[in-house]
Amino acid sequence: MSLIAMIPARMGSVRIPRKNVRYLGGKPLLAHAVDLAVGSGLFDEVWVNTESELLGELGVSHGAMFHKRPERLATGDAKNHDFTYEFLKAHPCDYVVMVNTTSPLVRPGTLAKLVSLVKSGEFDTVLSVVEEQAESFFDESPVNFGLDEKINSQDIKPISKVIWALTAWRSQPFLELYEAGQTPTFGGKLGLFPIPKDESCDLDTPEDWAIAEGMLLARFAVGEEPRYWQDGTLR
Amino acid sequence: MSLIAMIPARMGSVRIPRKNVRYLGGKPLLAHAVDLAVGSGLFDEVWVNTESELLGELGVSHGAMFHKRPERLATGDAKNHDFTYEFLKAHPCDYVVMVNTTSPLVRPGTLAKLVSLVKSGEFDTVLSVVEEQAESFFDESPVNFGLDEKINSQDIKPISKVIWALTAWRSQPFLELYEAGQTPTFGGKLGLFPIPKDESCDLDTPEDWAIAEGMLLARFAVGEEPRYWQDGTLR
Repeated sequence: MSLIAMIPARMGSVRIPRKNVRYLGGKPLLAHAVDLAVGSGLFDEVWVNTESELLGELGVSHGAMFHKRPERLATGDAKNHDFTYEFLKAHPCDYVVMVNTTSPLVRPGTLAKLVSLVKSGEFDTVLSVVEEQAESFFDESPVNFGLDEKINSQDIKPISKVIWALTAWRSQPFLELYEAGQTPTFGGKLGLFPIPKDESCDLDTPEDWAIAEGMLLARFAVGEEPRYWQDGTLR
Repeated sequence: MSLIAMIPARMGSVRIPRKNVRYLGGKPLLAHAVDLAVGSGLFDEVWVNTESELLGELGVSHGAMFHKRPERLATGDAKNHDFTYEFLKAHPCDYVVMVNTTSPLVRPGTLAKLVSLVKSGEFDTVLSVVEEQAESFFDESPVNFGLDEKINSQDIKPISKVIWALTAWRSQPFLELYEAGQTPTFGGKLGLFPIPKDESCDLDTPEDWAIAEGMLLARFAVGEEPRYWQDGTLR
């Protein structure tokens, strides 16, 4: 079974300008995804899929290969399934795992679990999700709870929110759906893969960037002892 | 119109032990909520609702008053509406705003907006929510999107996730529903109040604590200049 990692990256990000070359916690954003994929040793090939020579060069300097995407597939309007299709035609494989640079907090163990799930062969599409165990409304109506009682948050059935950190597709159905004029993004048998909340940031706005930076910083503080008000005098 | 802030706090938190006296970003967790409510100047009274003398004292030292909750309403099983009812019977008011210590990142401007909404008198219950603009599943079915197309995240209709950072109830219907044996938590005319994502942490697990710490750290870094890979050589 052949497994390829594809890391999409554009230079023309709008809400966080040039985010893929911007430093986050000591290295450029793109390098987080490349290091994760290359460092895992789980893929036959790791490709950065970009229109930008500079991003290609950055990927190569971290051990990935450079798939040069046509400019027409690198605009702000370009659809994910269009550039993924173009990529899969150029790099035949059984499965492709898209590793998004916008989720730089994914830990190696989480990627390894996703790859295991993909390799089980059970699914055609695997989406990474965060499970939100909170009362939620859609269109002002409750989705996962009733208004007539208050249940403990631990007992609420979760909503699974797709975060696009890691997405896997079986190539064959993806290509077939695409060529039949259908959207392959959620195609075939669909699996949801939960990832931990503290790996789930999705860099979209400058606010998200600040949050991700803080979450990275906090990881280094994990070993610190908590301090308490009036410790030792607790009644 | 009389408006009271109630800050519930227990000493016996389980998943994050003694969290209300634990220091977060330079002051004990409880003090964040008290400073927010007292500092706003928007309330006729600000009360810490706790069984603990120590937490009461901490609240008082930051300018709140101490409502001593009966021990039976301070167990892990105690229901929010039970201790809120006991509180409202002791402190008559038109509206109570519950300010939770588990959301220490709420900014003063956000509290002020919520209070304006409450004072409009339009709602009996106001819940703070975070709007999540992401494809979401419940019970493995899509909630706010279709599987046959991929739309841009900006165009996805949001799911509103309740976070209990700030909750407001009109006293009278709350008391009436409670006394009629019904759950008043979502009672009467319900309003959803969106709060910004970077104020929306909900401290439940040690992982959440690390995230909140990170988000607080990130606030102080906002003025820093971004750095870019190979800056000046961009092609």
